[in-house]
Formats: sequence, C-alpha cells, structure tokens
Amino acid sequence: MSKLRVLVNGAKGRMGRETARAVRAEGDLELVGEADLGDDLAAAIRSAAAQVVVDFTHPDAAAGNTETILKSGGCPVVGTTGFRMEDIERLQAISQELRRGGLIAPNFAIGAVLLMKFAAEAARFFPDVEVIELHHERKVDAPSGTALKTIEMIRSALDSGGSGNAPAERPREKETVSGARGGRYLGIPVHSIRLPGYVAHQEVQFGAPGQILTLRHDAPSRACFMPGVLFAVRKVVALERLYYGLDAILDL
Amino acid sequence: MSKLRVLVNGAKGRMGRETARAVRAEGDLELVGEADLGDDLAAAIRSAAAQVVVDFTHPDAAAGNTETILKSGGCPVVGTTGFRMEDIERLQAISQELRRGGLIAPNFAIGAVLLMKFAAEAARFFPDVEVIELHHERKVDAPSGTALKTIEMIRSALDSGGSGNAPAERPREKETVSGARGGRYLGIPVHSIRLPGYVAHQEVQFGAPGQILTLRHDAPSRACFMPGVLFAVRKVVALERLYYGLDAILDL
Amino acid sequence: MSKLRVLVNGAKGRMGRETARAVRAEGDLELVGEADLGDDLAAAIRSAAAQVVVDFTHPDAAAGNTETILKSGGCPVVGTTGFRMEDIERLQAISQELRRGGLIAPNFAIGAVLLMKFAAEAARFFPDVEVIELHHERKVDAPSGTALKTIEMIRSALDSGGSGNAPAERPREKETVSGARGGRYLGIPVHSIRLPGYVAHQEVQFGAPGQILTLRHDAPSRACFMPGVLFAVRKVVALERLYYGLDAILDL
Amino acid sequence: MSKLRVLVNGAKGRMGRETARAVRAEGDLELVGEADLGDDLAAAIRSAAAQVVVDFTHPDAAAGNTETILKSGGCPVVGTTGFRMEDIERLQAISQELRRGGLIAPNFAIGAVLLMKFAAEAARFFPDVEVIELHHERKVDAPSGTALKTIEMIRSALDSGGSGNAPAERPREKETVSGARGGRYLGIPVHSIRLPGYVAHQEVQFGAPGQILTLRHDAPSRACFMPGVLFAVRKVVALERLYYGLDAILDL
Repeated sequence: MSKLRVLVNGAKGRMGRETARAVRAEGDLELVGEADLGDDLAAAIRSAAAQVVVDFTHPDAAAGNTETILKSGGCPVVGTTGFRMEDIERLQAISQELRRGGLIAPNFAIGAVLLMKFAAEAARFFPDVEVIELHHERKVDAPSGTALKTIEMIRSALDSGGSGNAPAERPREKETVSGARGGRYLGIPVHSIRLPGYVAHQEVQFGAPGQILTLRHDAPSRACFMPGVLFAVRKVVALERLYYGLDAILDL
Repeated sequence: MSKLRVLVNGAKGRMGRETARAVRAEGDLELVGEADLGDDLAAAIRSAAAQVVVDFTHPDAAAGNTETILKSGGCPVVGTTGFRMEDIERLQAISQELRRGGLIAPNFAIGAVLLMKFAAEAARFFPDVEVIELHHERKVDAPSGTALKTIEMIRSALDSGGSGNAPAERPREKETVSGARGGRYLGIPVHSIRLPGYVAHQEVQFGAPGQILTLRHDAPSRACFMPGVLFAVRKVVALERLYYGLDAILDL
Repeated sequence: MSKLRVLVNGAKGRMGRETARAVRAEGDLELVGEADLGDDLAAAIRSAAAQVVVDFTHPDAAAGNTETILKSGGCPVVGTTGFRMEDIERLQAISQELRRGGLIAPNFAIGAVLLMKFAAEAARFFPDVEVIELHHERKVDAPSGTALKTIEMIRSALDSGGSGNAPAERPREKETVSGARGGRYLGIPVHSIRLPGYVAHQEVQFGAPGQILTLRHDAPSRACFMPGVLFAVRKVVALERLYYGLDAILDL
Repeated sequence: MSKLRVLVNGAKGRMGRETARAVRAEGDLELVGEADLGDDLAAAIRSAAAQVVVDFTHPDAAAGNTETILKSGGCPVVGTTGFRMEDIERLQAISQELRRGGLIAPNFAIGAVLLMKFAAEAARFFPDVEVIELHHERKVDAPSGTALKTIEMIRSALDSGGSGNAPAERPREKETVSGARGGRYLGIPVHSIRLPGYVAHQEVQFGAPGQILTLRHDAPSRACFMPGVLFAVRKVVALERLYYGLDAILDL
C-alpha cells in the first residue's frame, strides 16, 4: 500500500518540528515536504503532490493558508486558535464545493477534547459549573482558547437542556477584591492561573448538593498533541467536509 | 394528575429516612407507607397500593425483597451492593414475565455514575488507567463497590476496543514494600485510601505520553444520592424490565 | 483537679451549639453557662464565675463582647472574621493591662492554620504563588477571610525574604474576559470558586521551573473547628496577652 | 571574587549534563571538569583543583565516589538514593576528621523537601496519614525513595509526639482485592501509581474529623532539581560535616 503523502507548513516552529518528526516515525506516512513563512505554499504542495498538509503557523496566516491548501489539492489539518466564525464558514463552503476533507482544531490533545465532551454531557445534570485553567507564566492571554471552547460547549449543552437546568442565580454575591470571582464567559465563571512549573492544564468543576464532579486534563509536554495530529492526518483524506474541532471527527 | 404512590422499605435506616423525607418534599410523589425489617412487606405494598417501592435494607435481604416487591405489584428501586449475578438474572426473568420495570443500583450518585460512564469512554483512547478510591476510616471493605463496578466498566471498554488498546505490560515492576502498587482487579490497579475527614470519593486517572486525564467524584454527604433516587422512582413506572445500574436508565 | 469553667456566648448559633456540645463531652471542662444576643453578658460571666468565654456571635458585636469578657474576668476565645486592626490593638492593650490571656481567631480549623503557616514558609523559596478558595454557593463575600489572611502571611514572608524573591513581573498579561486572572490582594492573585457541594476549601499553589507545590485544606464539616476551639480554651488561661490567630498560640 | 571551582562526575548522564549546563550559567561558579565512569576521579579532582564535586552516578558507585571526593580535597554533593546507613556513618566520620563539608541527598527538588518537612510538622496534629506517589510507567521500584524518606520523617514526628498521637487502629479492615489498601511502611499506608504522562509526583494526605490536609509536589521536569543542586554547591564549602538530605542544610 502506498504511503500517505504529508507536507508540514510552519516546519521551523516547535509544533511543526514535532509533527515532522512524528510523521517520519510512522510506517504508513511519508513526509514529502516542509514549508515555512515566506515560501510559496501552493507551489510546495503541488510539486510534492502532498495529500495532507499540516499547518502550525500563526492565527493571522491560518485562514489564508487553509484556503491555499484546499485549492492546491491538499487536505488541511490546521492547528491554531483564533479563527473567526466567518472565516470558518467561508472555508467550509470552499471545502464542500471541492468535496475535500479537512480539520481546523484549536486543540489536538485527545484528553483535552474528551474533557470538553464529558463536560458538555455532565452539564445536562449539573448546571452549576466553573472552569479553571492553569498555564505557564509566559502565556499572555487569559483565559486560554481551550477554556473558551469548553465553556461554549457547556453553554450549548445547558441551553438545550431546558429551563430546568439553569445555574442558580446569586444576586447577592459581593467581591471585596475585584476580580476574585473570576471572569464570566457566556455566564460561566472562568479562572486563569499562571505559574512557572505549569504547562497546559484545565479543570472543570461541577457542583450539586452533597457532591462535586471534577474533570481535569494535564498536558505537561507537547508530546500530548501528536496522537491527535496523526489521527487527524489519517482521517481527513476520507472526509468530504472541513470540520472544526478534533471532537467533531472522533466518532466518524 | 394523580401522584405517584411510593413506599419506602428500610425506613428506619439512614438512607431510608432520607428517601422518605425527599419523597415528601416532591409535589408529584406521595409517600404511602414505610416498612422495615420484621414487617410483612407484601402486605404493606398491597394495602398501600404502592406503585414504586424504594428498598434500602441489607445485601442479604435485598434479593428476597426485590422478588416480593415485583410479585406484590410494585416497581422496585433497590439500592444495595453485593447482588450475585444469578440473583439479578432470576429477578430480571420475573420482571420480564410481569412486564414490570425496576432498578437495582449500587450507587445513586449521578456524579459517580457519570464518572463511570466517562471512564469507560476514555479507556478507548487511554488504555493505561488506575483507580483510587478514598473513604472514611470506618469503611471495612476495600476496594469500594463503586470502584469494582468502575473497573468492570473500564475493562469491558478496553476489551471491546481491540488488542491495540491493551495497557502496557510492565514485567520488571518490583515492590520493595508489599502492596505498594495497590490491588489488581481485572488487571487494573486499584488503591484504597481510608482517612477520617473523607466520606465517599473516587478518582480515575488515565495516562499517555505527555498527558494525564483525571475524573474525580467527591460525595461529602448523603444528600448526593437523592436526585438519583428520585430520578429512578419516576422512571421505573414507565419501564418493562428490571435494570442494573443507574447508568442503564440515564438515557432511556 | 477542678474543671475549667467555660461559658458559651452565641449559644443558639450553629458554632455556639457545636461548642457547647464539645465542651460538655470533655472531662476537664465544665459548661457553666450559655448566653445569647440580648442577654447581659457581663452579668452572665460574673454569676457563673466563668474562666473562659467562647464567643461565636457577629462581626459587629465581637469587639464589644471581647472587651466585656476581659473586663468581667473571663479569658475570651473569639471566632469571628472582620475585626478592624484598631479594635484588635485596643483590646490587646486592655488585655495587657489586666494581664489576662485571650484569642481572636478568624479560623479554628487546625489544618487551615497549618496550611497558612506552611504557605508563608514555602513563599521564602517560591515567590510565584496563587491562592484558590472554594466555598458553597451561599457564601456572599469573595474572597474568604481565610484567603485574605493567608495572603497577608505570604506577603509578609515574601517581603522579609529580600528583593531576590520578588514574584516575576508579567507586564504583557492580557485578559480577554475581564476578571479571568482573578483578583489581586497585596499583589497576589486570588480566585474564588462558589459551587453547591463545597463547604470550605482552600488551595495555595507555588510554581517554579519544573515544579509545583500545592497545599490544600478541605473542611467538609464544622466538626473540623472543635479541636482548635478546645485547644484554645485550655491554652488562654495560661496566657497573659490577647493573641490574634490560632497560629500565634500553636507553639506557645 | 574568585569563582567556586565545580567538577561534575557522571557528566554524560541526564542529571550530570543538566548540572554542567546549570553551573556554566551561573556567574559565581566555574565548571572546571567533567568525569565519568572509567575515569580516574581522584586524579581529575586534583588536576582541576575542584572545590566542589557533584556526583550523579549510580547507587553502587556513589559511596566509593564520595570517599574519593573527600580524600581528594573536594566537597561532595551527591544525588543518589539507596545509600546504606553504615556507609553514610563511615563517610560522615571521614568528613568530620577532614573537617570537610558535603551533602548526600536523595532529592534535590526544594518543593519535595519542603513537602517532607511540612508533612512531619502536620503529623504532630494529624496522626492519620497516607502517602501517594505517582511516577512514569518506566519506574521499576515501588514505593519511590522519596516516599520512604517522607514516611520515615512522619514516623519520627509521630513517635516523638507521644502516645496521644497514634493513628487510629482499624482491626476490622478487610481487603477483597489483595493489596488494595496499599503497602505499609513503618505502619503508614503508601500507594504507588505508575502511568505514562507522570514524571515525579507525591501527595501526603492527613485526615481528621471534618477536615483533610493535602500536601502535593509535582515535578514534571528535571529542571526542578537545579535550584537545589546549586544551593548545595554554594553551601557545602562553608560546612565542616557531611549531611544527609537537602532539608538538613536548608536552615543552616
């Protein structure tokens, strides 16, 4: 059986390098090219006859790259946060027209993706929920993209669960130190911890009288992303749509 | 609409008392009787015209009680660990003949039941798993019934996942203090902590290169069981079979 | 040996009731009286010849009560948050003049007090620290009094450790959801979680390259306060000053 | 001021390489040599005029190396578990005669060392305690050396606290899965978790009615050892004895 032809874009970045190494280590995959900022991506894809293009570049470039990949004959596997909804919809339209599969995923850690899925399911029974994410001290933005995505999934599960599942109102709550109760995104409290020693961690806590359910994911090294990236690389060639989120293709 | 007629057996025990109180507090339920060890359960059910009988008695009595409830016209909701497989099968046969619904559940804490369900699902992707359960120091048996049930569900998920998901063999492992690596049930390590200050807690930890996924349930008070008991009371009247485990009826 | 004569003020409140029960159960203590809002506290102390008066009333009344207790011949053991610094100093002056011992303690859980002590000690080596406190959903104020006290002790340890131990500056930090990074008290981030199922919990996390040190205290029931209250009741009669904080008398 | 002259033995191993790199990065230290298995250590120390020799080799070689270092004029900083008590005593005698400082430490992570110290202190108030250590799946022995040391310190604190602090007896405890209650070292339960994704982690849990105190250290990378190694390198030259354990020199 011929090997799946994979090109890595952003090959000089940390995630790109890890991906190139991981692809080389797999018997059924072939690394046919590496590109980076400044290269002609379309030409690279065509000359290498790449079937799948993994893109770990920059939020600003990612939408343009995804379009280039689709139009140059590759199936994109794009790992970047910060896509705007209208970009995703436009790219999905292009993909659908070309009947070419692809994936844009803010998070390739299967454990993190399962956590989000479980969180959405638990919210049906536990409307009172808070999210804590813990990252290294050099992370600039708070909360993390994963936390925002998690909350969006919880919110959506709460809303479809009917009015019986609304989180309790707490009108009298009073902060004596401003910000102590965290931020609120879609009505759900979110707390960002930043300490050296952490890498990427997230905890979702559900409370009900007499019980607490906690879901936690710790990702102390970037090794955690490769199983998800390789899963996606093999899956996209069999798809005919561009999906958003690793969870969307886990059960396909 | 007429209220659902509920009788509590084992009404003098802690769980029975809590159930009686919880039933009284619900607008759509009516507490029509309370029975206890030494009472004629069948007569109590018939004279009260009970539709649902909640039984929190003793493992030795539970199988007999379940049969009595079914044959006296009630739908049993039985909360006891320690049923033998052959008892459950015999009771399911009786229930099926009578087309009468019921539930035997070792655990009514919805959070604990969700944890088990999530654990089974996560095991498909994370074959390396250990279970830690933490209880008060007066608990005599180790591991807990919930831990055994959790492991049975994980084992079953691992086995149906194909050989690719076998947990890593670790032939060289060496205990310098006997028992340090915990017990093994169905090949999965289990660790029991016993300390005053704990009530009923369980943690399932999944590991893979670069990531850990942790599912934890804390049940610091018996209040945590009532939502599950009430959910079951309302559900069994619409069923035609006897189920085992709250999870079996969550999505019905 | 004659028993130590103890009076409980605020005897109808939850903490007062627990204290009265705990005092009755101890062989070397005698419960000589119970008072409450509206009673003449000075008269009650004198007529009962109380040696120690435990006061669990209300922040607004606590300073006045403490003065009354001292001047009526009792050693106060006062469990209330919210004392103003000038009140404490004034009461300490009165106590010193009378050479009568006493304790004002915002927290009688020995575990919580040890946590604070350890946190202050760890801060000498780990300047990067964040505090998370988790309480039931009916708690109105955030952060908790214990969290504020903990941070004060950490801050003091950091400041006495010299400039080499300043926490890293993070000028570029950016909140996309306002409040996500928590509150800052004395420069230290603090995060308050509020969920049903929690009672009173606190976690202090220290980070350094490659390591995290976590100190956590869970107090799922009020039973946790009694060992500290009884410890204080027996200790204050041998003191000649009014102390603030259970930690101040642990090693005396 | 002249720099402190440091030689690294075991320089090709992981810890040795990290140490060499860390020493090079410090302005007040000079890396004057690197030795390894097969080299003449005594000659290397003398020709380099090393003042401090850091040894990360192998348990079997460590005692001999420490003697060689002392007798060749260096202050040893040795990081290895598995020293026999009689070796340590013999080496301490040599050190005392030469009035040359040194340190043998099974653990250089300051967080882990603080955890042990805090655990010993907490045991005075909380006699009921269990230890959980969590490591990667390639670790052969269980429990970890750090867990054994921690338990020795807790045991010693319990014993000096008098009979009032004995952990509760639990004669009726029954394991239905052998080993579930963990191992017992010096009477204290110890549990070893082994999963990919972990590096080196330890948790000590203290329980009392209504409260749990948890001390946890996570060391996801070897970077966590360097602050302790460098602290020891600078400290030993001012000592006149050979100490065992980083904690022994923290407050000197």
